[in-house]
Amino acid sequence: MTERPVFIAVIGSASCDEPVAALAREVGQEIGRRGAVLVCGGRGGVMEAACQGAKARGGVTVGILPGADRREANRYVDIPVVTGLGEARNAVVVRSADAVIAVSGGYGTLSEIGLALKMGRPVVGLGTWELCQQGRPAAAIIRADTPLQAVEQAISLARMDTGEEK
Amino acid sequence: MTERPVFIAVIGSASCDEPVAALAREVGQEIGRRGAVLVCGGRGGVMEAACQGAKARGGVTVGILPGADRREANRYVDIPVVTGLGEARNAVVVRSADAVIAVSGGYGTLSEIGLALKMGRPVVGLGTWELCQQGRPAAAIIRADTPLQAVEQAISLARMDTGEEK
Amino acid sequence: MTERPVFIAVIGSASCDEPVAALAREVGQEIGRRGAVLVCGGRGGVMEAACQGAKARGGVTVGILPGADRREANRYVDIPVVTGLGEARNAVVVRSADAVIAVSGGYGTLSEIGLALKMGRPVVGLGTWELCQQGRPAAAIIRADTPLQAVEQAISLARMDTGEEK
Amino acid sequence: MTERPVFIAVIGSASCDEPVAALAREVGQEIGRRGAVLVCGGRGGVMEAACQGAKARGGVTVGILPGADRREANRYVDIPVVTGLGEARNAVVVRSADAVIAVSGGYGTLSEIGLALKMGRPVVGLGTWELCQQGRPAAAIIRADTPLQAVEQAISLARMDTGEEK
Repeated sequence: MTERPVFIAVIGSASCDEPVAALAREVGQEIGRRGAVLVCGGRGGVMEAACQGAKARGGVTVGILPGADRREANRYVDIPVVTGLGEARNAVVVRSADAVIAVSGGYGTLSEIGLALKMGRPVVGLGTWELCQQGRPAAAIIRADTPLQAVEQAISLARMDTGEEK
Repeated sequence: MTERPVFIAVIGSASCDEPVAALAREVGQEIGRRGAVLVCGGRGGVMEAACQGAKARGGVTVGILPGADRREANRYVDIPVVTGLGEARNAVVVRSADAVIAVSGGYGTLSEIGLALKMGRPVVGLGTWELCQQGRPAAAIIRADTPLQAVEQAISLARMDTGEEK
Repeated sequence: MTERPVFIAVIGSASCDEPVAALAREVGQEIGRRGAVLVCGGRGGVMEAACQGAKARGGVTVGILPGADRREANRYVDIPVVTGLGEARNAVVVRSADAVIAVSGGYGTLSEIGLALKMGRPVVGLGTWELCQQGRPAAAIIRADTPLQAVEQAISLARMDTGEEK
Repeated sequence: MTERPVFIAVIGSASCDEPVAALAREVGQEIGRRGAVLVCGGRGGVMEAACQGAKARGGVTVGILPGADRREANRYVDIPVVTGLGEARNAVVVRSADAVIAVSGGYGTLSEIGLALKMGRPVVGLGTWELCQQGRPAAAIIRADTPLQAVEQAISLARMDTGEEK
């Protein structure tokens, strides 16, 4: 077999407005044209836009679904993984990736950010949650200004990472 | 059977310093003496201190463990649930509770806060994460100043809640 | 804390006829009056009958539910654990027990028998599945003729067991 | 996007002798050359042999791993899904497939057979467990005599199946 590709998770809400979808699409495109595999929760919104972008650049997309029905996957998912685990599937999305890009996002995304940081996965943020403790911003999320920057950082961190756990 | 008790999850790090442990212990005591069931991740630190407090007041404690070995439970857990699910067990901790109290905490706690908010469980915070989006604080976590206040708010929110999902 | 009690899982179908329910009820009674904790999937049929029996003898019952709604628990469950994991919760039921008693049962029960044997939990069967490989019966399930015998065997095996994994 | 391919799970032990591996390899080859996606638990033995066969015929392989480390995957897995769920990942393997082929196998395989039947996935068996209830063989597992026959049956059943749940 050839060398394993890098796996990048894109996390964000299952519904979003068009500017956020445009960001996610561009993130997907940059992932796709670098030959990285896009991992996501497989549903609509940010996940669908990212998958669409990846497919437009010949990428491979994996959708790790919360429900018990494969038809829940958006139409740009190549490999639907049907977990039936509900929100507990968030841990599987994050664990299956070398690095994570959060695009905007709600509470589900917040939980995935927490899980990723806990598991030692680098998290790059595009307009996503900001974290503080005792009034001071926490440095955990790496801020990116553009989709291109986000993907470059995520892939470079994914390659550096030789963490034991993964 | 008699009426079901209220279930309160206490979340926080598996290791913590004594001031945080003291807070958690007091949270546990207040839960225990109100006859609520304390649900937690079953391990050390905040979880152990909270269980210890609850047992000191005659409470019942449930520890939902990440690993495959029951002996991972702290010695104040009455009912160890051995999931073997790793971090995915965080979703089970939160889903099994009517309301959640976060005491300080790290990334695992952050993930549980995200999951709780996603599932519609009220989250009361004692010196825990603060969340912002686009530079503005998010109102999602209810701040408490003391363990007593935290438990009173959590129990009162738990009783009010008649959410469909739960 | 006092010594931890023994945890016995009772597995079987979520709906069953009265003779099977009567067996399950008696299994629950024998568990309850020995002070063991009854663990089950928390739903109807065999699970409900076993919980009813345990409660009638002052036992404690834990119901590890597949769905996201606590109200799915039968009314004899003291501690509902709300997993939202679907069938994947079967692994949690079995892992949380020192020994397993299968009462009749369908495919879900079969999966729990497989998981229990894989995890090294002793399985005692009352009118449940029989397993063969290459035409020869497999000895894995310990047959019992009565609920009393099933519970005595399960508790005695649970006490003997000092397996690493648990 | 083009039409979704059929997903076939191959289940069996993580270690096996050469005759069983040869069967699994041939099953993988037949899956691969029909353009179906092979889903498995991602580890050694039957899983590795099946993946090797599929790759030799240009197929795509998905490995749904129990542990937290991607390097646990055998080298013929294209898409490693790192669940960290332990044995609970068996439910994800089976749910992600349209039909299941069991090759020989131990207790883990038995649990997957139970889960598949519970979820309404057709199960084709090659020298695997036989099930009886009350002394009578249960018809649930479809017996195949050769890998070719197993794959033809699995794919034809997968295509027929329009079950609600999936």
